[in-house]
Amino acid sequence: MYFKSFFDKQLAQMAYLVGCQRTGEAIIIDPLRDIEDYIETAEAEGLRITKTAETHIHADFASGLRDVNRKLDAVPYVSDMGGEDWKYQNMPDNTVFLAEGDTIEIGNIILDVMHTPGHTPESLSFLLTDKGGGSSIPMGIFSGDFLFVGDVGRPDLLETAAKLEGTTESGAEDMYGSVQKAKELPDHLQIWPGHGAGSACGKSLGAVPMSTLGYEKENNWAFQYTDEKEFKKELVEDQPEPPHYFAQMKKINKIDVPLAADTRTYPVSTNELTELTIDLRPKEVYQSGHKHGTLNIPMNESFLSYAGWFLDYDKNMTFIGRKNDADEAAKQLQLIGYDKVKGYISPDNLDLDTVSLTIESEQFVTMYKQKNQDLNILDVRSKSEWEENHLEGARRVLFGDLLTDDLPFDKNEPVFVHCQSGVRSGIALGALEKRGYTHIVDIKGGFGQLEELMDE
Amino acid sequence: MYFKSFFDKQLAQMAYLVGCQRTGEAIIIDPLRDIEDYIETAEAEGLRITKTAETHIHADFASGLRDVNRKLDAVPYVSDMGGEDWKYQNMPDNTVFLAEGDTIEIGNIILDVMHTPGHTPESLSFLLTDKGGGSSIPMGIFSGDFLFVGDVGRPDLLETAAKLEGTTESGAEDMYGSVQKAKELPDHLQIWPGHGAGSACGKSLGAVPMSTLGYEKENNWAFQYTDEKEFKKELVEDQPEPPHYFAQMKKINKIDVPLAADTRTYPVSTNELTELTIDLRPKEVYQSGHKHGTLNIPMNESFLSYAGWFLDYDKNMTFIGRKNDADEAAKQLQLIGYDKVKGYISPDNLDLDTVSLTIESEQFVTMYKQKNQDLNILDVRSKSEWEENHLEGARRVLFGDLLTDDLPFDKNEPVFVHCQSGVRSGIALGALEKRGYTHIVDIKGGFGQLEELMDE
Amino acid sequence: MYFKSFFDKQLAQMAYLVGCQRTGEAIIIDPLRDIEDYIETAEAEGLRITKTAETHIHADFASGLRDVNRKLDAVPYVSDMGGEDWKYQNMPDNTVFLAEGDTIEIGNIILDVMHTPGHTPESLSFLLTDKGGGSSIPMGIFSGDFLFVGDVGRPDLLETAAKLEGTTESGAEDMYGSVQKAKELPDHLQIWPGHGAGSACGKSLGAVPMSTLGYEKENNWAFQYTDEKEFKKELVEDQPEPPHYFAQMKKINKIDVPLAADTRTYPVSTNELTELTIDLRPKEVYQSGHKHGTLNIPMNESFLSYAGWFLDYDKNMTFIGRKNDADEAAKQLQLIGYDKVKGYISPDNLDLDTVSLTIESEQFVTMYKQKNQDLNILDVRSKSEWEENHLEGARRVLFGDLLTDDLPFDKNEPVFVHCQSGVRSGIALGALEKRGYTHIVDIKGGFGQLEELMDE
Amino acid sequence: MYFKSFFDKQLAQMAYLVGCQRTGEAIIIDPLRDIEDYIETAEAEGLRITKTAETHIHADFASGLRDVNRKLDAVPYVSDMGGEDWKYQNMPDNTVFLAEGDTIEIGNIILDVMHTPGHTPESLSFLLTDKGGGSSIPMGIFSGDFLFVGDVGRPDLLETAAKLEGTTESGAEDMYGSVQKAKELPDHLQIWPGHGAGSACGKSLGAVPMSTLGYEKENNWAFQYTDEKEFKKELVEDQPEPPHYFAQMKKINKIDVPLAADTRTYPVSTNELTELTIDLRPKEVYQSGHKHGTLNIPMNESFLSYAGWFLDYDKNMTFIGRKNDADEAAKQLQLIGYDKVKGYISPDNLDLDTVSLTIESEQFVTMYKQKNQDLNILDVRSKSEWEENHLEGARRVLFGDLLTDDLPFDKNEPVFVHCQSGVRSGIALGALEKRGYTHIVDIKGGFGQLEELMDE
Repeated sequence: MYFKSFFDKQLAQMAYLVGCQRTGEAIIIDPLRDIEDYIETAEAEGLRITKTAETHIHADFASGLRDVNRKLDAVPYVSDMGGEDWKYQNMPDNTVFLAEGDTIEIGNIILDVMHTPGHTPESLSFLLTDKGGGSSIPMGIFSGDFLFVGDVGRPDLLETAAKLEGTTESGAEDMYGSVQKAKELPDHLQIWPGHGAGSACGKSLGAVPMSTLGYEKENNWAFQYTDEKEFKKELVEDQPEPPHYFAQMKKINKIDVPLAADTRTYPVSTNELTELTIDLRPKEVYQSGHKHGTLNIPMNESFLSYAGWFLDYDKNMTFIGRKNDADEAAKQLQLIGYDKVKGYISPDNLDLDTVSLTIESEQFVTMYKQKNQDLNILDVRSKSEWEENHLEGARRVLFGDLLTDDLPFDKNEPVFVHCQSGVRSGIALGALEKRGYTHIVDIKGGFGQLEELMDE
Repeated sequence: MYFKSFFDKQLAQMAYLVGCQRTGEAIIIDPLRDIEDYIETAEAEGLRITKTAETHIHADFASGLRDVNRKLDAVPYVSDMGGEDWKYQNMPDNTVFLAEGDTIEIGNIILDVMHTPGHTPESLSFLLTDKGGGSSIPMGIFSGDFLFVGDVGRPDLLETAAKLEGTTESGAEDMYGSVQKAKELPDHLQIWPGHGAGSACGKSLGAVPMSTLGYEKENNWAFQYTDEKEFKKELVEDQPEPPHYFAQMKKINKIDVPLAADTRTYPVSTNELTELTIDLRPKEVYQSGHKHGTLNIPMNESFLSYAGWFLDYDKNMTFIGRKNDADEAAKQLQLIGYDKVKGYISPDNLDLDTVSLTIESEQFVTMYKQKNQDLNILDVRSKSEWEENHLEGARRVLFGDLLTDDLPFDKNEPVFVHCQSGVRSGIALGALEKRGYTHIVDIKGGFGQLEELMDE
Repeated sequence: MYFKSFFDKQLAQMAYLVGCQRTGEAIIIDPLRDIEDYIETAEAEGLRITKTAETHIHADFASGLRDVNRKLDAVPYVSDMGGEDWKYQNMPDNTVFLAEGDTIEIGNIILDVMHTPGHTPESLSFLLTDKGGGSSIPMGIFSGDFLFVGDVGRPDLLETAAKLEGTTESGAEDMYGSVQKAKELPDHLQIWPGHGAGSACGKSLGAVPMSTLGYEKENNWAFQYTDEKEFKKELVEDQPEPPHYFAQMKKINKIDVPLAADTRTYPVSTNELTELTIDLRPKEVYQSGHKHGTLNIPMNESFLSYAGWFLDYDKNMTFIGRKNDADEAAKQLQLIGYDKVKGYISPDNLDLDTVSLTIESEQFVTMYKQKNQDLNILDVRSKSEWEENHLEGARRVLFGDLLTDDLPFDKNEPVFVHCQSGVRSGIALGALEKRGYTHIVDIKGGFGQLEELMDE
Repeated sequence: MYFKSFFDKQLAQMAYLVGCQRTGEAIIIDPLRDIEDYIETAEAEGLRITKTAETHIHADFASGLRDVNRKLDAVPYVSDMGGEDWKYQNMPDNTVFLAEGDTIEIGNIILDVMHTPGHTPESLSFLLTDKGGGSSIPMGIFSGDFLFVGDVGRPDLLETAAKLEGTTESGAEDMYGSVQKAKELPDHLQIWPGHGAGSACGKSLGAVPMSTLGYEKENNWAFQYTDEKEFKKELVEDQPEPPHYFAQMKKINKIDVPLAADTRTYPVSTNELTELTIDLRPKEVYQSGHKHGTLNIPMNESFLSYAGWFLDYDKNMTFIGRKNDADEAAKQLQLIGYDKVKGYISPDNLDLDTVSLTIESEQFVTMYKQKNQDLNILDVRSKSEWEENHLEGARRVLFGDLLTDDLPFDKNEPVFVHCQSGVRSGIALGALEKRGYTHIVDIKGGFGQLEELMDE
């Protein structure tokens, strides 16, 4: 048996390639839309991807299942569980719909289908047994967004992101059941989850890429509860706000994902700046001179998780930056189903008319004390960060909501902005500029430094 | 002034990027459809490609002019010369049609348009003067397929490839006039031609990428003739047979080239082999085991010049090989306007049922002498090679015509095949297999070795 | 905790990077000499490699421990077990020598040292507990060459490769003890072994990169024995012949490995061909024309495992091939401590004077039956392959011994050579040429095809 | 004949590969120490580099001549002209020393040696005639640092950089003679110079990579003078200050250049910061937080030209940045013969204790006017920029001299620093920090903006 996991750092997502060397067949589980790497890996092992499966309808990325199906002519396997309102639509004719107890065979390898709802109603897990390797006991479980290393999937996304009322409660209930079911499985099982640390599909995922069931039974908080009510309370509490693009994902993954296409970007002229223009340069470079009204989301490994808050799937977007960064940004956005990038403009060709105002945290604290806290302070952190601690007198709007929510301050007054470390407040500056604020000051170092200084 | 030439080895083609650093504008002359490199180079110099021009309607590659226009919003400049029957069609509204004496300005750089017909009726050359650099005399000339290093463009392609009767004669006449016109220009001019050694747009192009007019006046054969008739005779004589795809190029370049798209290839299953299937592996590997009826065109720097003989622009094609080779082959084919690649099959997944028969040249010569030349010998070289020397008793069919022409031998008799060095005969084997020949033997080393051995 | 495994395909070897995000420290376990990838991975995670450990004195590759120590200033941790005769020498002053019960701390991560001899006397395993992640139970075990997926390490290398008599017997005994000791550990433990499928450090390693102890207890043959004698018999039986270079590894890894240096290769002239010259081109290309007396080991993912049989660590070597292949080959050889590559010669610049003789398996079988088996047949497969089945009348010399062993046939008689699939016999051809054989014929398809044909 | 130029952007340097396809021989002229690209290009054309030549003893980079000789076993050709004090030393035995009238043959290609002193006493040019191509007249000239596009080589480097007194005067005289000599050559000659725009070996080099002699006769200032005295005045005037490393180059290139070696860098620990530590991050990132006393030279295409001012060839250097930037920086520095890079430190692992002070140019101008120019203003531009215009009351020290020269201001007083555009003043900040200045303010936008604002 051949086994390989693929970790996408931007999405903290894991896909798995499993193949039977004897028959040359392989399956790809939970593929992204960028399928080149899967194919090349299979080819290097003399395998051909003939099947593809997914554990559930993803909320955080656009599924590559239909790409694999159409480009490689591979048979898709998807869940048939979860009730009438929650079915895959427009699937190809040869799709296999899976229920508890079904099996998928890849040569001599068997995947036993388990229904493990909670994250979503239709969520499946696949229990792998390597018959070709001579084993009669299962080796591991593809647990999707049911079971992570150190956590379980959050049950509230359908309600918070896709606005299906009441589903958080029923999902949490389901999850309790799924965990109890997992307790029956043997300790030696490897756990191959759908996400690693950094994913918004849970709240405390570990950085270790895989685990075992025995280890999780001991260490994963979800296995420690024997009271359903308490479990549900703990599960729902303090889940991070899901990025806005999540709302789109459930829909397209259920109904249809267009095939991934060429994402190369081309320079456009200055007068083609779109309403949403993202400046991909490093924060410090942007702040020392940028085009007024543009949003700064630097092209680094966190690009996608920040950009996902601001997309309008019906409108074009333009980048400011270099071609290689713009190409990479467009490729990333395609992973979450956004394909309306208009092009990019080199910063050389733009009038970088605006300098961001910043203030060192020490200076701010002095001013804050002098003025008896009488300042417009905007905290753009998450609810849980805020609840842990925040500045007296500050107001909170999550950075990702700044383009859409009502804002608490007058546009002509100075507003001091901070997040925890300085990354999200950098993005917030541009959002506030777009909303018409005229005097925005970034507090460098964020609440991390402020908290230390206030204590002194 | 910024100046850079781009040499495409497969097509022996040259495109030129010229920019004015003071205004940041640039032009790309004679672009291919693969425009990424042009853009990145311009960007690295702080230039933006705002204009694009071509010297003439190309016969040997699909023009990237329309790609540059639509993707970069650059103004296209094309010839308006050559008569009513030979006009560009379906051009964008902002196209500038050029005549003798017109100028193109790129910032402070001037291109003076010269009509230099011969290769084609509408052919232009562009005389560059760097006003920004303070010069009042021209620096060089973009001579397209009028003037090469050591040669001039062939006048017969419209007739041989595009079947426009009588155009060879009139083209040769035009070319004589264009050469006389060039004689008036100063010796110091740099010559920036459209092709280098290896192009089928002329017969004796030099390998040095550029030249000067003074040097050409002394060394280029075309400048040595003062008798028009003799010039025309020499010009038309011994031009190599143009690859079949040339017929398609004039048409699409004149009428419309679809935008270049994603050329990544994907594995297809064995039963998706198409009528034309090209095996991209090295000749020796193919010959030691291949799928019957497939054509072997190894993926190396000559791929395109061989593949161009066998394309059917209305039909799909499949490759046998690895993904990276298949991707590269598809990308190359797109340069000549072919975009119907269906996918590829890994040789691991195929029944490689056929071994090619080969014979060492020494053994062949012995047999040839013993049998008093009474053998079926197929020479797949060009007419000029044949005329220089060939085996007594051999028959000639150009390798590129083997799929379409009448063939001289019975399908059930042994046929011994050779070219000059062994490359084209390797391709011929598959073509003969496709035509139903059952006993084909490749003479290793080709006529190069045979000739030496016969002399002994 | 950060965790990443690095798989080297040529050596089927695994190194592991483990880091504590809270303190920024990381350790690299069982590093190769090519340490660039380890560093870049650590850096991308904000980690610094401050420690390095190895499970045992490796027999199959040159350790990168000293490179990591000297280049990164990292503290080395090595075994102090195994008796007086088996100690690391010339270690840096800050080396920590480990015994059963010791611990290594990487920030909040604990590695508990277990002595697990058998493969070698000093072999250690490291039991990882992620205290930083809040766990009080171990997560997994770095089992080195003690425990593999589906197998345990072979105990005979010291005797067969390093010529230490009697060590196979004592090693097998030790291994039985180590397995019993492992039985006491919990089922949920992840197993992180030192090798995967394809390594010569065991005989039946699985292709899945990791396992769990519970799974191995059920499926690994070594856990099924309760009789020590039977276990030892099974363990020692049918171990593959170790490549000759293994003899060198134990020595340099124990005594000193020179620092890895620049392995770029340069063209040399024809008269600089060395006694051992390796032709890196594909088998079919080599066979259709090569330099007499050169060895054909194609540059592909098996290069190193074949080349390792023929190295003389005191002598230079030359390649025939292209620069990129020669560079890759030199880089691979450095992983096993060989650094005397003199340069390469392009095949264009050589007189490829020799064609290999080959015979299709069908033809051979006909001849074999006609001549009543009276042919010189050389089987270059391993002992176990031979014992399973072989041609009547054949003689066996392992391909890797052909340069050094006595050979059974007269140099002037025809010799028919085969292996199982045709790869090793391709290498054998050159070795026989070097030994002075004049009429060597490669049986295409090998014993795999012969066996089928004989049955018909 | 095969011809290819190699342009190194950092050094604005050109090397040339010329080969004869008939004999397979090639020569590389004026090679850098990084010779991989030359080899691969030659190999792809079926050529072998058997000879190497240089036009003169370079002042601006470490010659790769000895690398090519030792690594490729190629015969070196160097100048024997220029008098006793100016001879190459320690050359290999097979070196050919060249004088006026000598020839170098590369197959059928002839290089005629011309003595063209002026830039240096021993400077040669090579006049190429392609006999193989059938020409009896020369095609072009490798003019080294004698003749550039739009300029001639400066004669003062031996005096300013290598401290040989009186050589500027004699060099200028020589150069006048060399120009007159060149006037005799025909207009059609291609000019293949040793440098392009951006080199410090001349003052007004054009950006076009090549030219013709006829064009230069018309446009190059040096050909317009008929009065030797005026020519010499113009030639010597306004030459830019040569970077300090030039002093080292003449010496090592004449006496011996060690072979280029592995330049990969490794992380070192914080307490291994060396006296000279270069921060490779973008200016804006450095300024918003850096380690006190480090020099900021961002890793971009100008890195080498700035770093060359600050090297101490006897001392180690450390970088702050990422591995890929550090590797690139070390590779660049090797081109100018510096090989004492100790390693790099990731900014993640450092206490970035210092923020640079900056002031917008508008604010500065207001302050400047208010205070009646009574400010400490340090202009770090070149002499010629200063002479063209500068701020009243400012003092000038070239940025590259800030570590070594006497500085005009008190260390405890505020100093306002500017250059022309803001790049060199960014470097100056760190240099002043190292010299103990405590209150340094960078005027953003530099004199370019100041000049505009003062005019308003």
